[in-house]
Amino acid sequence: MAAATPLLKDELDIVIPTIRNLDFLEMWRPFFQPYHLIIVQDGDPSKIIEVPEGFDYELYNRNDINRILGPKASCISFKDSACRCFGYMVSKKKYIYTIDDDCFVAKDPSGKDINALEQHIKNLLCPSTPHFFNTLYDPYRDGADFVRGYPFSMREGAPTAVSHGLWLNIPDYDAPTQLVKPQERNTRYVDAVMTIPKGTLFPMCGMNLAFDRDLIGPAMYFGLMGDGQPIGRYDDMWAGWCTKVICDHLGLGIKTGLPYIWHSKASNPFVNLKKEYNGIFWQEEIIPFFQAATLSKECTTVQQCYLELSKQVKEKLSTIDPYFTKLGDAMVTWIEAWDELNPTGDNLAKLSIADGPAKTKK
Amino acid sequence: MAAATPLLKDELDIVIPTIRNLDFLEMWRPFFQPYHLIIVQDGDPSKIIEVPEGFDYELYNRNDINRILGPKASCISFKDSACRCFGYMVSKKKYIYTIDDDCFVAKDPSGKDINALEQHIKNLLCPSTPHFFNTLYDPYRDGADFVRGYPFSMREGAPTAVSHGLWLNIPDYDAPTQLVKPQERNTRYVDAVMTIPKGTLFPMCGMNLAFDRDLIGPAMYFGLMGDGQPIGRYDDMWAGWCTKVICDHLGLGIKTGLPYIWHSKASNPFVNLKKEYNGIFWQEEIIPFFQAATLSKECTTVQQCYLELSKQVKEKLSTIDPYFTKLGDAMVTWIEAWDELNPTGDNLAKLSIADGPAKTKK
Repeated sequence: MAAATPLLKDELDIVIPTIRNLDFLEMWRPFFQPYHLIIVQDGDPSKIIEVPEGFDYELYNRNDINRILGPKASCISFKDSACRCFGYMVSKKKYIYTIDDDCFVAKDPSGKDINALEQHIKNLLCPSTPHFFNTLYDPYRDGADFVRGYPFSMREGAPTAVSHGLWLNIPDYDAPTQLVKPQERNTRYVDAVMTIPKGTLFPMCGMNLAFDRDLIGPAMYFGLMGDGQPIGRYDDMWAGWCTKVICDHLGLGIKTGLPYIWHSKASNPFVNLKKEYNGIFWQEEIIPFFQAATLSKECTTVQQCYLELSKQVKEKLSTIDPYFTKLGDAMVTWIEAWDELNPTGDNLAKLSIADGPAKTKK
Repeated sequence: MAAATPLLKDELDIVIPTIRNLDFLEMWRPFFQPYHLIIVQDGDPSKIIEVPEGFDYELYNRNDINRILGPKASCISFKDSACRCFGYMVSKKKYIYTIDDDCFVAKDPSGKDINALEQHIKNLLCPSTPHFFNTLYDPYRDGADFVRGYPFSMREGAPTAVSHGLWLNIPDYDAPTQLVKPQERNTRYVDAVMTIPKGTLFPMCGMNLAFDRDLIGPAMYFGLMGDGQPIGRYDDMWAGWCTKVICDHLGLGIKTGLPYIWHSKASNPFVNLKKEYNGIFWQEEIIPFFQAATLSKECTTVQQCYLELSKQVKEKLSTIDPYFTKLGDAMVTWIEAWDELNPTGDNLAKLSIADGPAKTKK
């Protein structure tokens, strides 16, 4: 009997930001090996990152990013996992799955290994329900449906742009919560996938995340974090706020819930507090800003939405800190770089072979 | 060792609408016996409803409703389980739990009987989080918390007004879905309680529902259904739409998820289709109406909110069908009756002993 072809084998890239050897891939081998990996090496570019045998990958270090983007490389963070968004930009696939290198395969309550990627793909390939809440969770799942009182006109749902997966073991807590509850572990397996309703923001974690590049890619910018920036650990949050506002505007859906990965190790809460410190204050103003943000109906592409949002960021958030002026500019640079690497129609010819990665292996 | 006192023993009434003997209570005895029951007998008032020995209850039939409410009894539905809301009105307790008489005790995945009432009480006694989504579900639950990126200023949450429980076995489907999927059973136990975000409507089912009468009671009107009305099976939906809009306005929370009950028997889909027929059309206009509804900031009590909503219903929905003019008037009558039976301050003296139930047993 021939093995079934893995879902979307040639339409999905796995993006991994890292500073170390990728031994964690051994555990993922049964699930990831058929797919192409894009590894974004953070920190010292002279360091050699070992990738286990048999994986098909391309690897970019800081020198590669600088060479490929030139002056526009300034929009890609350094010494922060926010650099992963460079991988989204250089991918040529329709779908992206991104995972942290301290995340392992989790088990479901029956003890079976969870194929996280397969669940993400299922989440992305079936619609979302952002306009009305279904109390039995995902209505498209086997054994479920829309409940009584769910308007029939809304049952087609909306295209799904993002699938946000969760974490067993070490929960994704901020530094203060880590400090207060150092022993807390997430042991609850909640067997549900749900759509985050339109108009509701959520804290998007980049640890175990999949999205449709064609639908929402240019909004998945992880901001300016780490080296030389006054903030860290808000890269995925920033992308989540922008993405949610744009998905709501464009009528796209975002799901959260399954699949779980096993998050192996808590990061250092003292180091985290230093990175998060400003964000903890700033988010008190940033979140009301995004909650109130509206985009004009002329914005019909993700790029247009994102550029309009970048203007509003500069206008309304730069009163918090000059950092937001810089971030607003970086958002524009990001879109310019995205469009350069992802030309459409006539622009295709501009793409030069010199833009390839430093190191590839098939 | 003395048994622990059941939670809120003297502050909660269990409201049960019925047309038959309440044998189903036998299974609930370990959980319900300490509480007071309010039984609302629907249909023929001459029929004797048997209640198992040992339960503390009061029972109201149609004659009692007519006697107590006089001409205002017109707002209470007949030959429809919508009549249950009369029980909410005559209760003098802070909390209500309402359950259908075809609902039995469900088991959790470990095989243990689920004390649905206890879970509802826990849901009501701890805050909701309607203003921002927490990806690990109820942040107040043991072993959970707010995730990274959840604004600290929002972590106090909002008072919880409603706890909406779910159903294993027979899912709460509309007639068309019942007809298409007669064999579908809900077997998935989702171990989560979550807040329905502000601004999002949901289909509220009255089968397994608890609420705080003081916070939201007057909005829990189940409308005009059944005998003489062009619609049925939208009683709880109507209450849910109104309640959600008012909770959002007043900054109150609504939770859904645990606890599950075991829903034993599917109602007849052909009968249901007849009842739902108009609702299936009408909800396509009703839901956008409620999604857009806003209340003026002068409305600071549930009653004020509800009366303002009744005006909007008459103005904006009576174009669908004259029924909505009648319903809007009934909403006003309901509030008048509520205030008569639930006097505050000086009005307390008006309450006459003659308003007692027909039959009580302690």
